[in-house]
Amino acid sequence: MKLSTLRDGTPDGSLVVVSRHGDRFVRAAHVRPTLQSALDDWDRAFPALSALASSLDSGAVEGEALDASALHAPLPRAYEWVDGSAYLSHIALVRKARGAELPATLRTDPLVYQGGSGVLLAPTDPLELPDPDWGLDFEAEVCVVLGRTPRGVRRAAASRYVRLILLANDVTYRGLVPAELEKGFGFFCSKPATAFSPFAVTPDELGSAFHDGRVHLRLRSLLNDVLMGDPDAGVPMHFSFFDLVQHITKTRGFTAGTILGSGTVSNEDPARGVSCLAERRMRETIEHGAPKTPFLRPGDRVRIEMLDEQGASVFGSIDQKVISA
Amino acid sequence: MKLSTLRDGTPDGSLVVVSRHGDRFVRAAHVRPTLQSALDDWDRAFPALSALASSLDSGAVEGEALDASALHAPLPRAYEWVDGSAYLSHIALVRKARGAELPATLRTDPLVYQGGSGVLLAPTDPLELPDPDWGLDFEAEVCVVLGRTPRGVRRAAASRYVRLILLANDVTYRGLVPAELEKGFGFFCSKPATAFSPFAVTPDELGSAFHDGRVHLRLRSLLNDVLMGDPDAGVPMHFSFFDLVQHITKTRGFTAGTILGSGTVSNEDPARGVSCLAERRMRETIEHGAPKTPFLRPGDRVRIEMLDEQGASVFGSIDQKVISA
Repeated sequence: MKLSTLRDGTPDGSLVVVSRHGDRFVRAAHVRPTLQSALDDWDRAFPALSALASSLDSGAVEGEALDASALHAPLPRAYEWVDGSAYLSHIALVRKARGAELPATLRTDPLVYQGGSGVLLAPTDPLELPDPDWGLDFEAEVCVVLGRTPRGVRRAAASRYVRLILLANDVTYRGLVPAELEKGFGFFCSKPATAFSPFAVTPDELGSAFHDGRVHLRLRSLLNDVLMGDPDAGVPMHFSFFDLVQHITKTRGFTAGTILGSGTVSNEDPARGVSCLAERRMRETIEHGAPKTPFLRPGDRVRIEMLDEQGASVFGSIDQKVISA
Repeated sequence: MKLSTLRDGTPDGSLVVVSRHGDRFVRAAHVRPTLQSALDDWDRAFPALSALASSLDSGAVEGEALDASALHAPLPRAYEWVDGSAYLSHIALVRKARGAELPATLRTDPLVYQGGSGVLLAPTDPLELPDPDWGLDFEAEVCVVLGRTPRGVRRAAASRYVRLILLANDVTYRGLVPAELEKGFGFFCSKPATAFSPFAVTPDELGSAFHDGRVHLRLRSLLNDVLMGDPDAGVPMHFSFFDLVQHITKTRGFTAGTILGSGTVSNEDPARGVSCLAERRMRETIEHGAPKTPFLRPGDRVRIEMLDEQGASVFGSIDQKVISA
């Protein structure tokens, strides 16, 4: 099942169910007004939403034609946005780029940061660049949405808390990162609002491509219609989503609707390209002595999507234009 | 006006208006079901809630007797919990305690971290200590709740976004901090759920004690009924809440209901005591060569409150017992 949120002028938008092919939708506000309210009462909301999805896919309900620009992020605001950094080749390249050391516990202790979650971007919202020196970059990721999750979940039990899967563009101002991390309290101003894919889908939509707490498909990032990378999001994910759930629940529980990100998808093989410009610039520096690709500039267009084995877009496209405002 | 949230089994509880003396309340769910929904539509909700408060204080409405244990945090879950560290003597003592350097921009660039906000603790919820080696500490703070706040607010315009003021116990596992900050991404597991005071109050409740974006009253912290400190929360706050609003809105906006904390209230004068045990232990180390006060242990009781100039409790008491579970 694919779920989306229609912009309706309210902070949380209006819940809709989208057809398997992503081209039509049916309003679901009579089941639960918002995706958050569905997640708060998932066991009862799920059967009713599934029935709507079946009616739409069978043709019993016609639904309405989907216009991607009418969609908000599936959760236009979430109670938590917790972002991991589970692809080690990303950590290695980005830390090398800013001259930072690799953590000693790189392979044993997951890196996560707490992101801002009160204002999230729709898949087609512009990327704002008020100051070109801030070094705007995209970061393409896979995420899961958790149901209510208690403290102390072990990885072997973590799958039962995964409700939905979606994609993110974890936007970063690279120019603001070094001074901010130097202060010791993590990212804040260097991470503006994060954008999410049009559809959040139940794990069964991915079939066998979701297993071991990883999404075994390639994540495509395009800049101005040129493919920047299509790395495998599966095996190279050193810590699975289940590992990350065990880590984040060490000292506290989470409310339904918490979004947990994989970190920028990255493969060691340079042929698979990149999911962010910082990695590409670092690879260029290693090869040529200096970066050639600039960070994002007004007018640039970033597209992020994931195709299934039949070539169909699972989550719809994040498709954002950079503006100077 | 004092606002609170009654526990009712739902994730967000039920909005109530509390009398000026904090002893009676009237249900406000017919105005707006939750504090979040009131904050989302403040301009329309505020007059109706104020009218309820007046009826209660005038005796026109009798209301119900208030039982502090029936109250949840004013926002049992919030979309963001952004915590500053605006008292420089706290930063100096705590960093000295863990052998960390002071940031070069200490006096010019505010420190803030993004806290977890999806599960917040009621004022009487227990403080959980699953492992005594985690070094459980309280941190008493003053906070404001923001209305919807756009990107790029200047400090001179920040007061218009402050809706409510309340207290927090920003619980910390000191033993988990060094290894976590070493990784470079800020606090995560070292900050379990934060607790909040029973009442969130409109700034006018504080009269002239709230000015220049600071609360000019003393914040009292008691451990097992012994006063640990009553530092002035006003002038020693190096960055005011208005400074913090300017800082946090540099690259993004915030939804209504965002909670912004001052950081642990701390005065340079040792006679004012402390608002956390890490500071007390550091002062003991400086004076005696070693800390004498242990971190919190099961059975300990922490109380945090703020009295106005007439000696009345403005926010009610955070009153938590430590349990080993």
